Amino acid sequence: MLWKAEEDSASSQTMSFTTEEDGLEEKILPYDILGNLAHVKMLQEQAYMTEEELGKVEKELKNLYSYDEEINAEDVHTFVEEKVSEETNAGKKIHTGRSRNDQVSLDTRLLMKDSSIEIGLKAVKLVKAIEQFAEEKNELIPGYTHQQQAMPSSTGLWASSFADALVDDLKLLKNSYKVFDQNPLGAAASYGTSLNIDREKITELLGFESVQKNPVYCGNRGKHELMLLQALNHIMLDLQKMAEDIINFSEDQQVFKIPDGFCTGSSIMPQKNNPDTLEMVRAKAEEVNASTQAVNGIISKLPSGYNKDTQQTKKHLINSIKTVVDTLEIMASLVQDLKVKEDFKVKTEVYAAYTANQKVEKGTPFREAYEEVKKNQEYEKNQKIKKPKNQDYSDVETYWKDERVEFNEMKNRLI
Amino acid sequence: MLWKAEEDSASSQTMSFTTEEDGLEEKILPYDILGNLAHVKMLQEQAYMTEEELGKVEKELKNLYSYDEEINAEDVHTFVEEKVSEETNAGKKIHTGRSRNDQVSLDTRLLMKDSSIEIGLKAVKLVKAIEQFAEEKNELIPGYTHQQQAMPSSTGLWASSFADALVDDLKLLKNSYKVFDQNPLGAAASYGTSLNIDREKITELLGFESVQKNPVYCGNRGKHELMLLQALNHIMLDLQKMAEDIINFSEDQQVFKIPDGFCTGSSIMPQKNNPDTLEMVRAKAEEVNASTQAVNGIISKLPSGYNKDTQQTKKHLINSIKTVVDTLEIMASLVQDLKVKEDFKVKTEVYAAYTANQKVEKGTPFREAYEEVKKNQEYEKNQKIKKPKNQDYSDVETYWKDERVEFNEMKNRLI
Amino acid sequence: MLWKAEEDSASSQTMSFTTEEDGLEEKILPYDILGNLAHVKMLQEQAYMTEEELGKVEKELKNLYSYDEEINAEDVHTFVEEKVSEETNAGKKIHTGRSRNDQVSLDTRLLMKDSSIEIGLKAVKLVKAIEQFAEEKNELIPGYTHQQQAMPSSTGLWASSFADALVDDLKLLKNSYKVFDQNPLGAAASYGTSLNIDREKITELLGFESVQKNPVYCGNRGKHELMLLQALNHIMLDLQKMAEDIINFSEDQQVFKIPDGFCTGSSIMPQKNNPDTLEMVRAKAEEVNASTQAVNGIISKLPSGYNKDTQQTKKHLINSIKTVVDTLEIMASLVQDLKVKEDFKVKTEVYAAYTANQKVEKGTPFREAYEEVKKNQEYEKNQKIKKPKNQDYSDVETYWKDERVEFNEMKNRLI
Amino acid sequence: MLWKAEEDSASSQTMSFTTEEDGLEEKILPYDILGNLAHVKMLQEQAYMTEEELGKVEKELKNLYSYDEEINAEDVHTFVEEKVSEETNAGKKIHTGRSRNDQVSLDTRLLMKDSSIEIGLKAVKLVKAIEQFAEEKNELIPGYTHQQQAMPSSTGLWASSFADALVDDLKLLKNSYKVFDQNPLGAAASYGTSLNIDREKITELLGFESVQKNPVYCGNRGKHELMLLQALNHIMLDLQKMAEDIINFSEDQQVFKIPDGFCTGSSIMPQKNNPDTLEMVRAKAEEVNASTQAVNGIISKLPSGYNKDTQQTKKHLINSIKTVVDTLEIMASLVQDLKVKEDFKVKTEVYAAYTANQKVEKGTPFREAYEEVKKNQEYEKNQKIKKPKNQDYSDVETYWKDERVEFNEMKNRLI
Repeated sequence: MLWKAEEDSASSQTMSFTTEEDGLEEKILPYDILGNLAHVKMLQEQAYMTEEELGKVEKELKNLYSYDEEINAEDVHTFVEEKVSEETNAGKKIHTGRSRNDQVSLDTRLLMKDSSIEIGLKAVKLVKAIEQFAEEKNELIPGYTHQQQAMPSSTGLWASSFADALVDDLKLLKNSYKVFDQNPLGAAASYGTSLNIDREKITELLGFESVQKNPVYCGNRGKHELMLLQALNHIMLDLQKMAEDIINFSEDQQVFKIPDGFCTGSSIMPQKNNPDTLEMVRAKAEEVNASTQAVNGIISKLPSGYNKDTQQTKKHLINSIKTVVDTLEIMASLVQDLKVKEDFKVKTEVYAAYTANQKVEKGTPFREAYEEVKKNQEYEKNQKIKKPKNQDYSDVETYWKDERVEFNEMKNRLI
Repeated sequence: MLWKAEEDSASSQTMSFTTEEDGLEEKILPYDILGNLAHVKMLQEQAYMTEEELGKVEKELKNLYSYDEEINAEDVHTFVEEKVSEETNAGKKIHTGRSRNDQVSLDTRLLMKDSSIEIGLKAVKLVKAIEQFAEEKNELIPGYTHQQQAMPSSTGLWASSFADALVDDLKLLKNSYKVFDQNPLGAAASYGTSLNIDREKITELLGFESVQKNPVYCGNRGKHELMLLQALNHIMLDLQKMAEDIINFSEDQQVFKIPDGFCTGSSIMPQKNNPDTLEMVRAKAEEVNASTQAVNGIISKLPSGYNKDTQQTKKHLINSIKTVVDTLEIMASLVQDLKVKEDFKVKTEVYAAYTANQKVEKGTPFREAYEEVKKNQEYEKNQKIKKPKNQDYSDVETYWKDERVEFNEMKNRLI
Repeated sequence: MLWKAEEDSASSQTMSFTTEEDGLEEKILPYDILGNLAHVKMLQEQAYMTEEELGKVEKELKNLYSYDEEINAEDVHTFVEEKVSEETNAGKKIHTGRSRNDQVSLDTRLLMKDSSIEIGLKAVKLVKAIEQFAEEKNELIPGYTHQQQAMPSSTGLWASSFADALVDDLKLLKNSYKVFDQNPLGAAASYGTSLNIDREKITELLGFESVQKNPVYCGNRGKHELMLLQALNHIMLDLQKMAEDIINFSEDQQVFKIPDGFCTGSSIMPQKNNPDTLEMVRAKAEEVNASTQAVNGIISKLPSGYNKDTQQTKKHLINSIKTVVDTLEIMASLVQDLKVKEDFKVKTEVYAAYTANQKVEKGTPFREAYEEVKKNQEYEKNQKIKKPKNQDYSDVETYWKDERVEFNEMKNRLI
Repeated sequence: MLWKAEEDSASSQTMSFTTEEDGLEEKILPYDILGNLAHVKMLQEQAYMTEEELGKVEKELKNLYSYDEEINAEDVHTFVEEKVSEETNAGKKIHTGRSRNDQVSLDTRLLMKDSSIEIGLKAVKLVKAIEQFAEEKNELIPGYTHQQQAMPSSTGLWASSFADALVDDLKLLKNSYKVFDQNPLGAAASYGTSLNIDREKITELLGFESVQKNPVYCGNRGKHELMLLQALNHIMLDLQKMAEDIINFSEDQQVFKIPDGFCTGSSIMPQKNNPDTLEMVRAKAEEVNASTQAVNGIISKLPSGYNKDTQQTKKHLINSIKTVVDTLEIMASLVQDLKVKEDFKVKTEVYAAYTANQKVEKGTPFREAYEEVKKNQEYEKNQKIKKPKNQDYSDVETYWKDERVEFNEMKNRLI
């Protein structure tokens, strides 16, 4: 423990109250090692470390990259500094020119980048599964408004609406990613350092797009986390709506058959086959939103400069990332296996607007045609099945693939 | 796994996506055992079980009460049914006349009661610590409005404001407790059961105030959890404000010295002694609010009858309870050790209203006195130290003590 | 404008940025007059005003009670003080011993009491409409779990679940009411006053249950508002669920016919009859929740003593009260007119649990009976219609009726 | 009223419950006229209207553009259709090929574009005011962490941190704008139309970047509104933090003097000069967040296809836009007038990290230097004033200026 002097140490109650819950530090470790490797390379170039010291430090850091036991230390940063210092005295130099605050920011930013890429690619995969479903299983179904059958629709038109929405989300994610792709290291404890560090060098080694300029802004953690969470929240809102629709369409609305593998039964009603997976998607979307609110609430009204409060944002970020990854994966599987039933009914009233439009085509002003159909209640059918429709996703797909390559190359160069 | 037929089982992906995170089921176990013990006693009285069967089942249930290993089953309810059934064939009867849904409700309700009592008593303890501080360390300090020194105040008046607020919270908690102190068991899968069960008997055995009448309402889980969370949120709002004040008063406002045991240091600034504990209180209050919102979001817009979504409320409830217990404990310690500094300054302007009031006492209409003081800027001092002031808490203290006794007696009767 | 000195006045941009939106002050006026009338009576008894002065002031205050034009002043309190001062010089004494802060608190508290009573009585009226529906239109309908037909239910059982829930809400509302039924006047600007005011007298004149003891706590506005909003939020959650159910049951689930008077049509689909009222109930519940969050967010992290931020809680409180009153009224009308269709279908699978229970009655252990039914898929029907079931509401009804009488008597005594 | 047939009309209670609050429709009118003008031009090109009819309709639509009275109709769309139809029978054709749903979407999208440009430009103006302050009034001040003096900072470094953050927000706003810059018209009631309309034509006439492809996605209103609100929320979070800092720095932390024009006084404390403007900024940030949550809550869990609930998103969007515009304006004025005091104190401990770094420069490993300084408590001062630091904003400035030109040209072409 770095700050524990003999007589004035934080009590164990305080330590347990103020440190992270189990399992979070382990998720940060690989990013902390990458950040350390870049930092020490820079320190050596700026003459704060000899080449020999660098060699020893790098060796131990690379060993720790694959460390897979529980971390028993106040946090991962202290753990790494102490581990390296046990092996070589140069370990005492690795904290030169930085603070735990900007180190946490850096680790989190790397995790955010890595996770965004993963989520971007998984969302593209889901878009592809949706498009395949929309093409291959396209049937005429009723389109609902106000939860009533309203107009003729198709499974393809319905499904592709989620592809269209998800591509918007992917753009949002990409844009947020581009905003937060800035290197915070060098801000130290929110006010920079008097040492001669090279922020550009770190930025280049870790593959960031740019330096995050103002150190006070770097110290005001949480906004970038919030941006990512807001984008994730949009993905979950879409998946929640899709889940809601499939639940509706699979029972009383009679259009879909949810594969058994995604359902569970009841402990007392032998006949039940419940859409648990989809209900969980619906609930988990609310949880990602609550995490977004937690981060917003934690950072709101905080004065400038690092405040401990922001530590609590990490958990919500990491949990939400896991939720989104899991949900994208299971929805892709479910969409692949989703079956369209053959025996559902479409009410003839859904052709009312079409009937009015046919009168318009023959010259009746729309409002008059509308009144006629309303009065007569006679409907002309149109059995044409609407085609799937959604924007192209090739740009975002290419983007995330390229970012994955770059991120991996950065890792390989450092490890 | 109860519902896994051979060919149509939920996939392992689905099982992992839809079940609780690690560690939650273990916290439910003791309440599940209590609920089971009451349920089987009732089943025997209603002749669905022989006395001999009851004996065997009770023996195994009591053994499980102190089970302290990890629960490897889809949930604690299945775990218990399977464990008991391994020992005696009568285990196959324990699910008679109930559903997992009302069993979860029951377990959660017992946990809510037990936790409310614990929180009630801990909050009373904090109120006492505050009152002691207010009596023993009462000094004249500036009172702030709009974050500016405004009026003369005292540490006692300030501290006792939190006692006053916490007693309101304790009343709120008590009232919510009285609303949710209803037995939901017997609702089965939200629509009751055709079997001849005795809901009053269960209610009496488990010490509930009344039966929760409507089974559909029982199935609509989450409202009672939300009520409890709202009361907990009020407690956290008070503790957050207290933390905010102490942080303010301990640095630039110069009134308090936070004991070292509640602070930690900086990794690069050797001089720092940061009020981490209080910053964490501030952040954790936001997390309890986010959990409240999570539960609200999860249950909103759900149709009647059990929906799987509500399972996700459990985690937020249990985590928030732990947060509130921990925060009440550490704040009680901190208040006990909090020191009042001797060298802070009170601006003379804080006596402006007092000066105007003195003119009023001599007959000047208030608005004229106000204008005179505003113009002259001459102030008459008043060094009287204001006394602590807050409502009595003996009623709520007695209430929670009595409930603790009753709850423990109920446990002892059953185990 | 009270605080505008010549040279240092707030700019008009500041005035417009920091004052309330149109229409709010007018809603506060009657409560401000009541508060003023009690305050001046007390001032006279404490010898800060002569009987003659009191008479003049009371006359003008009573005139203002029925003032129904727009209030063109920075706020209602300044408006009243200035209006009275125009008529009599004694007007300059009415602000003796109080601050605008505790005056706003007082007015808001009176508004909260009056509105709670109104909402309590309207909620009871809705409970009665539900009970009547449940008794008179009780039919066998399918009960849903996981949005699938699960068990036999009845319209009466379904409807009365909302009565059961609303009575819990009424208890919650009553309990919150009892917590916030405290007189804040006398706290002045959060730190009390040196003048010899009589807080008990005001409390008695205005019919409060008790004095809100600690002036700092009085200055920390928002908690009591939040308590009321949380109770209102519960009412809206119930009405939202009821709306969701009726929408579901009225279209594809075929059970209800929503009266035309509660529906609107489509601008292009002549056949549509949309459940707009119920969709709005669903949306408005979210808005009341957002207002609850707004108040929570506004007061969170504020230091002790009055802060201007809390002014913004008023709007959310007043808007939510209006929403809840309107929603209770329209739902009572809708429930009265709601029709049960005759031609809906109940799936025979809903009798699966009943079939298993019948085997249990003949001695088969439940888990075995369950497995048999699951395998055979043969179901025994039970056409018994379940009776409505909910807790008694007579206590809460009496409570709100009594409070209405008391509140009105208080008004009549003062005006 | 379009949908009111004789016998089945919505009741007046329903109409009042389901329609917008006063004043909102008027704000939509100009965008509705623009949308109508583009729509009828397209209808004429597609031969659903003659050139003569187009001329008459356009004339009346242009007249309505400057209509400035209250709109007494169920909504602005019906109002326009009826007004035009009063003048010419061709008015009955203007609703051809569209629904009120996609019309509202279109109007809202145009309002969102126009407002984003306004906000973008106002935010740039604030960034400039901040940069000017940072350059011209740059003084050495203490930098805080954990609300304690921690490191030497400067007013310039502090102020420019907000410029840095706001440029991130401006990027976010720009990116969201690019995502929602899609034309929804043509989706009709969420499922397209069978008429031969030309969506590309409308898109071009109204200056949208692209067509929003999938009509079901168009019908699922609210996501784009949420994207905009999330970006606005980020702006408010920055302004809230700035307000919090200025409040702190202007009283006990002694660095700033808030100009009197932004303060107000107290009704009982003649000496007070309260930072009301800044407190309101803090509160209003919470309200924008609550509006964001309202929209999120309203759209969550809704099934696909238009649902009336989404109507309620409009109010939160429009109110939040107004709040952000007002707040940006007043903060720009306040920053311009903000004065730096001359007599504040910087504690020497803030040089502790600098002292340790000086030892590092002479070869001591950092961790050892840190321990030495911690032990000795002797500090070396460094009076260098840190320079402002933030990213360039010229790209975003150019972007919003160009968009303003394009938007205005589009208006001028149509009107």
